Amino acid sequence: MNLYESLCDLVGKDKATINETILRHHSGDESHHLKVEPDVVAFPESTEDVMKIVTFANEHKIPIVPYGAGSGLEGQAIPIKKGISMSLVRMSSIVEIKPEDLTVTVQPGITRLKLNDELKKYGLFFPVDPGADASIGGMAATNASGTLAVRYGVMRDQILNMEVVLADGRVIETGSMAKKSSSGYHLNSLFIGSEGTLGIFTKITLKLHGIPENIIAARCTFPSIRSCVDSAAAILTAGIPIARIELVDARSIKQVNHFSETDFPEEHSLFIEFHGNQSGNEEDVDFVKAIVEDMGSSHFVFETDSLKRAHLWKARHDLHYAFSHSYPNLSILSTDVCVPISKLPEIVEYTRNQLDTYGLDGGVLGHVGDGNFHTALLYNPQDPDDIAKANQFNRELVSYALKVGGTCTGEHGVGIGKIQFQKEEHGTALDVMTSIKKLFDPSDILNPGKIFPNS
Amino acid sequence: MNLYESLCDLVGKDKATINETILRHHSGDESHHLKVEPDVVAFPESTEDVMKIVTFANEHKIPIVPYGAGSGLEGQAIPIKKGISMSLVRMSSIVEIKPEDLTVTVQPGITRLKLNDELKKYGLFFPVDPGADASIGGMAATNASGTLAVRYGVMRDQILNMEVVLADGRVIETGSMAKKSSSGYHLNSLFIGSEGTLGIFTKITLKLHGIPENIIAARCTFPSIRSCVDSAAAILTAGIPIARIELVDARSIKQVNHFSETDFPEEHSLFIEFHGNQSGNEEDVDFVKAIVEDMGSSHFVFETDSLKRAHLWKARHDLHYAFSHSYPNLSILSTDVCVPISKLPEIVEYTRNQLDTYGLDGGVLGHVGDGNFHTALLYNPQDPDDIAKANQFNRELVSYALKVGGTCTGEHGVGIGKIQFQKEEHGTALDVMTSIKKLFDPSDILNPGKIFPNS
Repeated sequence: MNLYESLCDLVGKDKATINETILRHHSGDESHHLKVEPDVVAFPESTEDVMKIVTFANEHKIPIVPYGAGSGLEGQAIPIKKGISMSLVRMSSIVEIKPEDLTVTVQPGITRLKLNDELKKYGLFFPVDPGADASIGGMAATNASGTLAVRYGVMRDQILNMEVVLADGRVIETGSMAKKSSSGYHLNSLFIGSEGTLGIFTKITLKLHGIPENIIAARCTFPSIRSCVDSAAAILTAGIPIARIELVDARSIKQVNHFSETDFPEEHSLFIEFHGNQSGNEEDVDFVKAIVEDMGSSHFVFETDSLKRAHLWKARHDLHYAFSHSYPNLSILSTDVCVPISKLPEIVEYTRNQLDTYGLDGGVLGHVGDGNFHTALLYNPQDPDDIAKANQFNRELVSYALKVGGTCTGEHGVGIGKIQFQKEEHGTALDVMTSIKKLFDPSDILNPGKIFPNS
Repeated sequence: MNLYESLCDLVGKDKATINETILRHHSGDESHHLKVEPDVVAFPESTEDVMKIVTFANEHKIPIVPYGAGSGLEGQAIPIKKGISMSLVRMSSIVEIKPEDLTVTVQPGITRLKLNDELKKYGLFFPVDPGADASIGGMAATNASGTLAVRYGVMRDQILNMEVVLADGRVIETGSMAKKSSSGYHLNSLFIGSEGTLGIFTKITLKLHGIPENIIAARCTFPSIRSCVDSAAAILTAGIPIARIELVDARSIKQVNHFSETDFPEEHSLFIEFHGNQSGNEEDVDFVKAIVEDMGSSHFVFETDSLKRAHLWKARHDLHYAFSHSYPNLSILSTDVCVPISKLPEIVEYTRNQLDTYGLDGGVLGHVGDGNFHTALLYNPQDPDDIAKANQFNRELVSYALKVGGTCTGEHGVGIGKIQFQKEEHGTALDVMTSIKKLFDPSDILNPGKIFPNS
């Protein structure tokens, strides 16, 4: 059987391709994981197209790997077992905006920046901000979060309902349009973060938020990375409803200045943002200023101008590119552990020291308000020693995080890179997850080889 | 086989009983559903006790119904198929408070008031507030919420991790101690709201919050129930971060005044609360005052005194008792639909009118910030016509809610009373839920007869 021709017969010539360039484009994501080309790329344009393709693939036991914007960092979109890469790019429209309900229903292919452009007209925004211009479907599939999660939560907190095509072609809705429900099992949260292994998302209803009446951004620098994180912990336990609180270490600031032509002082820094009404924000800012100055901070700088604020956050978000574009011949391994806040200072300090111990170059940065941080670790993919060191560094960091009650991935997902830690993190619960996967996808056609050891 | 003696042999004489009074005490909850006595009541004192009892019950296909505080409103704790009522009352301790992580780990039997008494010492509180002094285990099992959900979310938003004993005796952890995670499937949310049908919770780790620096309560009255709900919707869409916003109709206010010896004006009212810093709250209060006065509100009254505030909310929370204790010979059917905010004004008005159409007595009240409201419907359980009218009223209200994209239960859960609506609400997704139930509990020993039609 010729897979390409079968798909053409099934959904139409214009919705499947074996064009070399397009196959290559769907062979990888933004991670360091090895690229693998699919046999075919499919471009469904409707839920019905998705149903046809999935049903066909299930009959013939052909792998299907959903593809959104390709901005993933753990290889979720890489078709490591070949088969069909299902691009959702043609399912990128807004189905319905309901400003009075503070909800929007979208197709999975739409990216978050395009969505927020549309929402601006209504004075609304969607707050989950992973930095990259990811697709909403991909963000749901990995339970993405990012800089605003400390205030607004993660994807799982922001999704009311999804339309999902199951491996056997059945279509279900996982929630409702009500803001809360205690009716039946919560399928929403089971599918969110399932990384394409349980079903294909074809519609997603999101909660929206009013653009805050007043926003103040601030940054401050610290003599040590430890005092940086201690301050963040102090601000959180003081109960100040911070909207963003980001750690960027001196090494990363240097890279930002180089790439984004900024001139931030090249010291360990916190970038902070406040959302609320003006008087409330000003009181919170004063409180935070007092806390960080107690902790030895200097250069406490405000940013109320919205353009300058956007510039500041863009610089922070471009960090991954700041490293990757500056070192085209090196790969970046991005770690993603998340730990209880009280353990954050010690593990961040440990991480910074480990980089030096291993003689590895990289930046430490992250969403310290959630206990989640990343190491952008530079290594030479041609050098076996370098690869070994990077992997060893990552393994030791994850073991540390798990020992203190944390997780191997706060927001990037398991994909390929975190499979090795699933048994250690979840124990018997991993067997339960495996049995759920088998229940939903007995032929293992939905993104096979992801999340589960030897699936 | 004598079940009682077998349990005594298994866990010890002091941990099982067939005492008539105790059996009767475990035959019902606070709902209108018919009471059924269990064959035995078991009092496990550890996870190991629970494992032993569950494993034994699974071998011999004996129903197990977990029992917390008995404050449920849909019969979840009623052992309708007899067997074992498993009281968690002896597993009611705080395992560990971690103020620096803003988390606490508890056993399921502890009640929320006892927990909050302990947390006060640390300047912390647990915000999920269903009114009744429910057990944390029961609140997790029904995904309870209540008056503070509009600001702090529901149980599902507040639980980091649970220890759960499965039907086959395996023990799993459903999450981690990290504030967020993208590792594996989200078992937390699958078990939360599963009403004892998937496993028995033996440990629960909750997120905590700092007691707000400043709290202001307010109440205001409206000429019509419609303007009441319109105002709530306007406040929400204005993006004001309200902490509580409760509708109490004139009929309910009358009952509150009678039962709680308060003297609130007997008109349709909103009870509101603001959490934050002082200047922020004051600015929000002014904004809200302006909105509600535009909507024709009068009697806008503040309450900053914490005792008076507590008194106000206690009156609101005692509403169910205010009706039940005043009409000892009548039963109360409490409806629990939740709809998109924009549909709330029309459905609340519809509900108030339906009461008159049917000539039924009852109050309309609820968590209008979430689109969730209740009808405390009085009926005579000895009068078949009255019963028929009450059920008809409830069925029509749920159909209305489902038609506009809502749910049959916002916070009480399915239990017995909402089973009849599961197929209509979930469609094909109900088949998926049923297959998950069969996967976890093939012998159907865990709270059989709940949630699922003819299970």
